[in-house]
Amino acid sequence: MDQHSAPFCPLRAIQISRIMRPDDANIAGSVHGGTILKMIEEAGFIISTRHCNSQGEEHSMAALARVERTDFLSPMCIGEVAHVSAEITYTAKHSVEVQVQVIAENILTGDKRITNRASLWYVPLSIRNVDKVLEVPPIEYTDTEQEENGRKRYEAQKLERLATKQKNGDVILPMISLEPHTVNFSQSSLIHLVGPSDCTLHGFVHGGVTMKLMDEVAGIVAARHCKTNVVTASVDAINFHRKIQKGFVITVSGRMTFTSNKSMEIEVFVDADPIVEDTRERFRAVSAYFTYVSLDEKGKPLSIPELKTETEDEKKRFEEGKMRYLQTKAKRQSEKLALTQQ
Amino acid sequence: MDQHSAPFCPLRAIQISRIMRPDDANIAGSVHGGTILKMIEEAGFIISTRHCNSQGEEHSMAALARVERTDFLSPMCIGEVAHVSAEITYTAKHSVEVQVQVIAENILTGDKRITNRASLWYVPLSIRNVDKVLEVPPIEYTDTEQEENGRKRYEAQKLERLATKQKNGDVILPMISLEPHTVNFSQSSLIHLVGPSDCTLHGFVHGGVTMKLMDEVAGIVAARHCKTNVVTASVDAINFHRKIQKGFVITVSGRMTFTSNKSMEIEVFVDADPIVEDTRERFRAVSAYFTYVSLDEKGKPLSIPELKTETEDEKKRFEEGKMRYLQTKAKRQSEKLALTQQ
Amino acid sequence: MDQHSAPFCPLRAIQISRIMRPDDANIAGSVHGGTILKMIEEAGFIISTRHCNSQGEEHSMAALARVERTDFLSPMCIGEVAHVSAEITYTAKHSVEVQVQVIAENILTGDKRITNRASLWYVPLSIRNVDKVLEVPPIEYTDTEQEENGRKRYEAQKLERLATKQKNGDVILPMISLEPHTVNFSQSSLIHLVGPSDCTLHGFVHGGVTMKLMDEVAGIVAARHCKTNVVTASVDAINFHRKIQKGFVITVSGRMTFTSNKSMEIEVFVDADPIVEDTRERFRAVSAYFTYVSLDEKGKPLSIPELKTETEDEKKRFEEGKMRYLQTKAKRQSEKLALTQQ
Repeated sequence: MDQHSAPFCPLRAIQISRIMRPDDANIAGSVHGGTILKMIEEAGFIISTRHCNSQGEEHSMAALARVERTDFLSPMCIGEVAHVSAEITYTAKHSVEVQVQVIAENILTGDKRITNRASLWYVPLSIRNVDKVLEVPPIEYTDTEQEENGRKRYEAQKLERLATKQKNGDVILPMISLEPHTVNFSQSSLIHLVGPSDCTLHGFVHGGVTMKLMDEVAGIVAARHCKTNVVTASVDAINFHRKIQKGFVITVSGRMTFTSNKSMEIEVFVDADPIVEDTRERFRAVSAYFTYVSLDEKGKPLSIPELKTETEDEKKRFEEGKMRYLQTKAKRQSEKLALTQQ
Repeated sequence: MDQHSAPFCPLRAIQISRIMRPDDANIAGSVHGGTILKMIEEAGFIISTRHCNSQGEEHSMAALARVERTDFLSPMCIGEVAHVSAEITYTAKHSVEVQVQVIAENILTGDKRITNRASLWYVPLSIRNVDKVLEVPPIEYTDTEQEENGRKRYEAQKLERLATKQKNGDVILPMISLEPHTVNFSQSSLIHLVGPSDCTLHGFVHGGVTMKLMDEVAGIVAARHCKTNVVTASVDAINFHRKIQKGFVITVSGRMTFTSNKSMEIEVFVDADPIVEDTRERFRAVSAYFTYVSLDEKGKPLSIPELKTETEDEKKRFEEGKMRYLQTKAKRQSEKLALTQQ
Repeated sequence: MDQHSAPFCPLRAIQISRIMRPDDANIAGSVHGGTILKMIEEAGFIISTRHCNSQGEEHSMAALARVERTDFLSPMCIGEVAHVSAEITYTAKHSVEVQVQVIAENILTGDKRITNRASLWYVPLSIRNVDKVLEVPPIEYTDTEQEENGRKRYEAQKLERLATKQKNGDVILPMISLEPHTVNFSQSSLIHLVGPSDCTLHGFVHGGVTMKLMDEVAGIVAARHCKTNVVTASVDAINFHRKIQKGFVITVSGRMTFTSNKSMEIEVFVDADPIVEDTRERFRAVSAYFTYVSLDEKGKPLSIPELKTETEDEKKRFEEGKMRYLQTKAKRQSEKLALTQQ
């Protein structure tokens, strides 16, 4: 970072500080690089949005266009304070360069050390029309060398951006199966690294945390199938046979098993993987059926496209789902009858 | 829920309330079923842990064993207050039944409605030895019918639990590839539904949020490969070509490309899927290389098991990774040299 | 809190409970005062918004106007359950007083203790026009003394609010001094971009979110000064004069003003900056005094290094802090005396 510039010039510099919490770190207490990257980008977003709005009439938000290579020189620990200082170091017609320095401070010992530096490029997009790139107010440089060096960095990154755009910027990905409404089309899974806030004091995952992730996957499967607003209608009984511990990676997978006129049934599995313990094997922790419905803007249920089953297994699961659906329907009607007869 | 019991009976009842926030809901403003399930389980955990520790000398934590089928009668909205009331309704020798009722309150109109009921079973595990199940202090019943109905529910769930345990409780899952240190063995991906807190005021994902998820996947790949404590060492330049919007589902996938003696290179892809917009296609939003190292308890770098490449593509990517590694190393050494010569 | 009122009186009382998680606490496991302040304000917001909408046709949201001085009697720990009970205790034409009591419950041992009490004032703002203050439906009092005492509290806070409104305007410039125990050495600031989950449905920051950030900065200042484990002991009255909106950047700065043998007083400022709106200027939103103590591993208060004042302003603030300290001490002793004489 340029040592000439005053650190607290109102428009060109900013500092963000935060204590590192248990959820920011891995089990060994080292803060995730991703936590730092997120803080760096927040500082960059604030300073470049502020700068781009300092002149001119049309309001804009700065969109991140590129982050230069970053080295993490030393890990940060829980309880330390991360100080992220960001400064605008170059402006082109439509781009802003922000340079960031991160310092870890141990507030008990007073030790401070640089953990990393980063360089980010932002582009101001009009708030009214996000496809319109606005102009960036120019900054003043202390000398021509400073400006010249900035221009060189700008030209270099421009070339590299262009190269990657040609390489993979416009990749359109085929879905696993191109056929909509099949089981493969909507099936989804997520991975979650179990952190301290997910657990009881003794390091076991709260059942509620698991159920929340299961519902999240089921909701994604349902939305992918019907492409409309979906809500949870019911959850079948869930049994928890084995405990999941802090530090495990859990994989939550969902696949659609059955559709009626107005509802979808999604089977969800939770698999636990004690990644850092060589001796223990991955195991199935939980499984359950979630039923989703789709609602229009007035809250009225919408029709659901029928699930297209392809394999024998899918057809079998569809029939089993239909059985559960009919049983529930029958049970609910007999309960209603019982209520009206009371 | 039993109307006889006093609402503030110290041991047997609790109420948890919270305002529903944007992050608790989907884009249409309906609160995720998973948010409600998590609150229900928090109430159940508190009340059953409290009850199980109310007598006896050995402390225990209540572990969730089963949730009965739950129907969501009506969706909750952002800004409404969720009231979760839980009550202990039956105790067996080693199990506690908790019944929960959830009410949505609109604090502007005063409207209240029941959104769902749930029934949970907990088992007290000793804190000193989590494999030891402790005894549950019995509750008193208002009449023998209440006790008798509880016993019936207890017996019914016991049978069902046993059935599912035999069905899928002990499934051990094979890894995709059984061979450790291959690319397939460690590759991982996660799905994230973009929520309001991930976005700028105008509904576009902050670049920092994307980078945090990328680092999370890279860290899981690295830990799966070397089974030891890992930290981010560096991130290569990342280019952001296309904007990701609120409500999109993003898939973040990572695979190991190269290992040196003390470092691992992981390639990470981010794909964006505008699930509810039929007309727009899934696209590759970002990709980048993360370098990870593994540290022992004193922060000293550990040796990394060599990556076993199997296919031609994997071998090619390994060679490319080696080139990047050697280039970075050379660049760093020339920088060091320049510094010492100054 | 008034013992006469029924606990489930639908309009006038509410209870919020939650397990304290690792992220709620410092490294020593003591829950941050800011976490508690945020829960207190959530309870206050729910109950006063509910009450203000119980009559009349125009909907309103209750905006926090003032929090009276709060003492933290005992720190809460991770794993304990915080119960926050709030009750409406007085209504003026345009103001609601909410009294709150916080209880920490150890669900393993069954221990319960009061950790603090608080008194908050809210003002109902029309949802259609946030600059319009609506009228508050009156509550009924059990006797005239109760009403009379409420009126006295109302008049007293009104005077104080008016006084602070005229005062605001000091700015803290971050500067790092190498000399330990000076004001410059420990002063700190953090920046926060206001996101959707920080706000009410109508886009204004919850007062509790602001207080949590204030406590975080005060805690960093305190730890930097004494280099040992610190906890919030009390918070002086806080007045909220201007609303902060979604998308604003807030800067929270803290500096130490006074030390006694066993306590530190930290002054905290909150400045709001509407970064994307050129026409609106940055403004001082809130300021307050936090008192911190330092505890050893057994919870015994430690001696605090004396604050070294350097400038005339610092010496003046130190003397003012000493006055506040002696007044509070005298007030507490006269209250104790009054209790023993009853």
